[in-house]
This record gives sequence, structure tokens and C-alpha cells, in this order.
Amino acid sequence: MTKLKNDLFLRACKGKPVEYTPIWIMRQAGRYLPEYRAVRKKSDFISMCKTPELAAEVTIQPVDLIGVDAAIIFSDILVIPEAMGMHLEMIESKGPKLHNPIRSMDGINKLKTIDPFEDLKYVLDAVRLTKKELNGRVPLIGFAGSPWTLMTYMVEGGGTKSFSEIKKFIYNHPMAAHLLLDKIADTVADYLSAKIEAGANAVQIFDTWGGILSPTDFEEFSLRYIKKIVSNIRRKDEPVIVFAKGVHYKLDELADCGADVIGLDWTMEIGKVRNKIGDKVALQGNLDPTVLYADKEKIRNEAVRVLKSFGKHTGHIFNLGHGILPDVPPENAKFLVDVVREESKKFH
Amino acid sequence: MTKLKNDLFLRACKGKPVEYTPIWIMRQAGRYLPEYRAVRKKSDFISMCKTPELAAEVTIQPVDLIGVDAAIIFSDILVIPEAMGMHLEMIESKGPKLHNPIRSMDGINKLKTIDPFEDLKYVLDAVRLTKKELNGRVPLIGFAGSPWTLMTYMVEGGGTKSFSEIKKFIYNHPMAAHLLLDKIADTVADYLSAKIEAGANAVQIFDTWGGILSPTDFEEFSLRYIKKIVSNIRRKDEPVIVFAKGVHYKLDELADCGADVIGLDWTMEIGKVRNKIGDKVALQGNLDPTVLYADKEKIRNEAVRVLKSFGKHTGHIFNLGHGILPDVPPENAKFLVDVVREESKKFH
Repeated sequence: MTKLKNDLFLRACKGKPVEYTPIWIMRQAGRYLPEYRAVRKKSDFISMCKTPELAAEVTIQPVDLIGVDAAIIFSDILVIPEAMGMHLEMIESKGPKLHNPIRSMDGINKLKTIDPFEDLKYVLDAVRLTKKELNGRVPLIGFAGSPWTLMTYMVEGGGTKSFSEIKKFIYNHPMAAHLLLDKIADTVADYLSAKIEAGANAVQIFDTWGGILSPTDFEEFSLRYIKKIVSNIRRKDEPVIVFAKGVHYKLDELADCGADVIGLDWTMEIGKVRNKIGDKVALQGNLDPTVLYADKEKIRNEAVRVLKSFGKHTGHIFNLGHGILPDVPPENAKFLVDVVREESKKFH
Repeated sequence: MTKLKNDLFLRACKGKPVEYTPIWIMRQAGRYLPEYRAVRKKSDFISMCKTPELAAEVTIQPVDLIGVDAAIIFSDILVIPEAMGMHLEMIESKGPKLHNPIRSMDGINKLKTIDPFEDLKYVLDAVRLTKKELNGRVPLIGFAGSPWTLMTYMVEGGGTKSFSEIKKFIYNHPMAAHLLLDKIADTVADYLSAKIEAGANAVQIFDTWGGILSPTDFEEFSLRYIKKIVSNIRRKDEPVIVFAKGVHYKLDELADCGADVIGLDWTMEIGKVRNKIGDKVALQGNLDPTVLYADKEKIRNEAVRVLKSFGKHTGHIFNLGHGILPDVPPENAKFLVDVVREESKKFH
């Protein structure tokens, strides 16, 4: 195994001392980069996920171009429902569509039990190839959707504003919902374990839709299965990050879920959260992604505000509070990385 | 003036003793009611807003059919940008569109200064007619959008998922943004004062998009102008309610904004919020609107959970944490009202 030249991210995940605050950016391998769009022009989104050479290429782009301290494998959370047998389609400018959404036990019974080494081999191949090409420059993060977020897509059949179908499903078929969540949790735990085996240095669970649940429903339908995954991932020292967008109301419980790092969206004051939950987990985040639309002075001020709010502690990974937006100028992303590197030194 | 036969809602807004917890439902005059859809079939949405007879008819429907303790005048927050000179169009199943969205000082300068008694006379006529037809059965609520929420629509030109244009606007043209917010705040204060003069017994300010702002941006671009409105509304004893969806991070500041009531979305535990901010304001909310998809047992359990969480105090107005969804069975809304009436007695 190649020794990492820059392991700041991994150290920060474990609350260990660092020289400066490491930074990576959610969706950093994405449309805001002209170099990404050039690859995307030659291939559709799903084929990019399924072609290890292309996935590795765009995964490494932000390391070269933006200078981030960690890479995250280019993929999509919906590769899991697809591997389980659902038909996934990415509709240009409309988002993902999962055909024949699940609405009953019948749909659940049709789902396949998968072996990630076989059914998601292309992701693991992409991880292996990326690791080889990164050659130890920075750590590589693997990721998956949370059971709640994946089930939301599987029941809604795609994105949604009202979450009507998923809420009808959990309220009117709670037993079926729990069965499905459990099945997804097992699959995700296996999948993330396989990614680590293939070389991922850390994994992140995205609970994009956790925050649309009431506090009690979040515990019942999301947190419980995140916990199951975290305790079932086969890992040595690889950190687990949980990012539950909008879940401002269960931060103590999230901090106790077994993860090493909790990701925060931009509506939370990172310093207040740290005061509340202490140092038992590291925190990741949480600059408002739209700040990258602003001029350099504003970007610097807002980045410094986040650093100051967190304060002179270990255990901070700088990131945006949500994915980078596709119309952000890449030079602003690069500027943010430079500013965090420069300004954070005085906090360590 | 007709004396109110049921003034529970007004008493609860002021933290006074009540026999049971009053309830009304955001968007209660809406598409989930077949009786509403029958009116809507004969007229487009904007014409309904502009025809006092139709607005009054649908405003009173939930009082008759669902049994709520307050009526809220049927209207739309976008009547203000329209009165200020923007061209408003409601596009079926797509939502509102404001043509020629504002992106510069030029757009702001073109906005008219309005006199609500002239430019929004149809709303005031609807308030007067509704009051007459309600004949003192329950109080009537008037409402408006917050400056931040209205500006978001005026700059985006309609609904948005990414909020790119409005964020670019505030970060790159902050002076213009503040000028526009100030202009809207003055307009809204005048408009709500006129509604009270026309007979509204209370007013609610909807800050639907407050929660997409970071805590510091919320104070700068939203709260400041809500405060201005609250202090400028001409009123006697009429309560002001502020509902800032998703603003879990500035509850203390909201409670100090001068409003009598703070509305809570369903991601907040109402009892925890009360413990945090005390009894200086009443609280409104906050059942997850999707609970109305569930069966009656679940609806009862969740309604009781909210009542218990708030506890044996004065100053609670029961409501959903967001608008009622259009595909909710009306009998479930009716059941909720009955359950709250019955179950809440033991808390008073």
C-alpha cells in the first residue's frame, strides 16, 4: 500500500492535530468544472459511473485543479437501487428516474440481494484505479446514500418536492418500510465495506432527505438504520462520516451513532454545534454553497467566519454545507481552498 | 363591530387561558377540499384572489366543513409584487411566474409605490365581505409574505430549487438588495395595516424561504425587515404571527422580533422550543403535514404528541408545520380538528 503524502483529512477525521484545516468539497467532481463537462460530453452520466477510467479521471480532476485534501469517488447513490434490480434513468435537466417505484411488499420482494464484488464491481474497479492513479497524493472517500434517502428515491421513483408517496408508504405500510430499510442497510454496509476493501480511506453516508422527517420519525426511519450500517461496516481505522442534511434536531443522537465525523449543512453554526456535542466526533462543513457566487472578499470573510466559529480545536474538516452548485466559477472553488489553507494555519 | 363568538385563537395568541387549544390549518382554503376545487373550476387562481365573492366563499369553506377556530383570507403572497408592477402568471402544475425578474437597480426603480386601499382594494374588499359573512363565528387572519421571501420570488422570477439568482443578487448587489427589502417591508407593513383596518383580527407574515439562509444572512436579509414590519403595523390588539420555515437557528431572535406568535415547522420539538424561549411569545404548530396521509390512530397519536410536548401551558395555537397538502383526504383534516378539540381539553 502506498503511504499517503497528505493525510490531513484522515487525521482531522480522528480529531488528531493537523497543520491546517483540510478541505474537500461535496460534488467536487462535477459540472462546475469545464474539464468534467468535457468528459461528460463524450459519455452519459450512468456510463461515466460504470467506466472506471472515466470515473477515475473526473475523481482526480479536483485534486489537480482545485487542490482539495481528499478525493471522493465519482459515482451516484442510486447505483444501489439499480444493482438491486430497479431500472435507473438519468433524464437531462430533470434528474434521476427509478422506473416502477416500490409501493408494496411485492416491489420489495422483487429486489435482489446483491454481492457488491459482483453487482457493483465497476465501482470497486473505479476505486482501485483511482487509488493507483492518485498514487498516495490524498485519501480517497467512498460513499453511499442512507437507507432512508435511498428508500425515498425507490418509493417516489425520483426526486420530489412534496414527499407524498414516501410519507404515505411509511405511515400506511410501516412494516414493509422497515423491512425495506433493513434490506438497504445491509446492502449499504456490505457495499461500503467492499469500497474500503478496494482501497477507500474513508466513507461518507449521505442522508440527503433526513431533514424532511419530524424528530421522532427521523429516529425511527433513518437514524436507526444509519447506526446499523456504521456498526456493520468492516473497517480498520477508516473513518465514517455521516451527513444528514437539515437534521438540526438530533445532533446529539447523530454524534452518538458511531460515526467519526458529522457533516453539517450551512444553517447550523459550527461553533455552537461543537459546544453542544463536544469533541466526541469531528465536524465537517459548513460554508453556504452559494457563497461561491460572491466575490473573493466575501468568500474569504465567510470562510474565516466558519474557521473562527469552530475555533482552535482539532477535528474540523472544511467543506460546503451542501454540494457545490454547477454554475459556480471554478476559480472561486480554487480560491476557497487556498483561503482555507492559508487562514486555517493560525487555528492550529 | 360584531362580537366574536369564538375568540379562542385570539386569546391563545396573547397567551391567555382557553378551554381547549384552538386550531387552524395553513392552506386550509385549498385544493384538498372538493368544494374549493368546484369554485376553482369556474375561475383561474388569480381571478379567485381578485373576486371578493369567490375569495370570501373559499375562505369560509374550512370553517363550515372542517370546523377550524380561525379563517385566513384566501389570497396569495405574490399579489404584492403584482401590485408593484410585475406581471404575475400562475402556470398550471408549475407554480407562479413573475415575468422580467429583478436583477438590478433598474428593475427596482421601475417598481411602483402602492397604496393598498387602491392597488390592493380587491383584497380589502374580500376581507370586509368575509368578515360580514363570517358574522363573528371565528376570527379572520390576514397575511403577507416576508420581504426576503417576496424578494426571492421577484429576483428568481418564480419558484426555485437552487436559489442561485437570489443568492447572486444579495452577495453581488447587497446595496440594491437592501433597498428592495426596505421598499417591500414598507409596502407589507402598509398592506397588513390596511387589512387590519378592513377587519382582519390578526395577521401572519410567511417567511417561507428564511430557512435557506445561513444564520448571519438570515439576520441581515430577513429578520431585520420582519422586525421593521412588525413595529410599523398599525394595530390595536391584533396579534402578529411570524412563521419562518426552517429557521431553527434563530428562535430566540425571532421570539424577540415583536411578534405575538412564532410559527414552527414540523422539524422542531414544540416543547423544547418553549423551554428554550419561555412564554414571551405564543407558539403555533407544528404537526408534520404528511401525518394527514396516515390512518386515524396515527393522526390521533401524533396530534397528542404535539399537545403533550407543548404541555399544560397557555399560548399554543395548533396548526400543521407547513401547508396542508392537496391530496390529503378532507375527512382526515376534519378528524384532526376534532381530535385536537377533544384531546386538548385536558391540557387547559
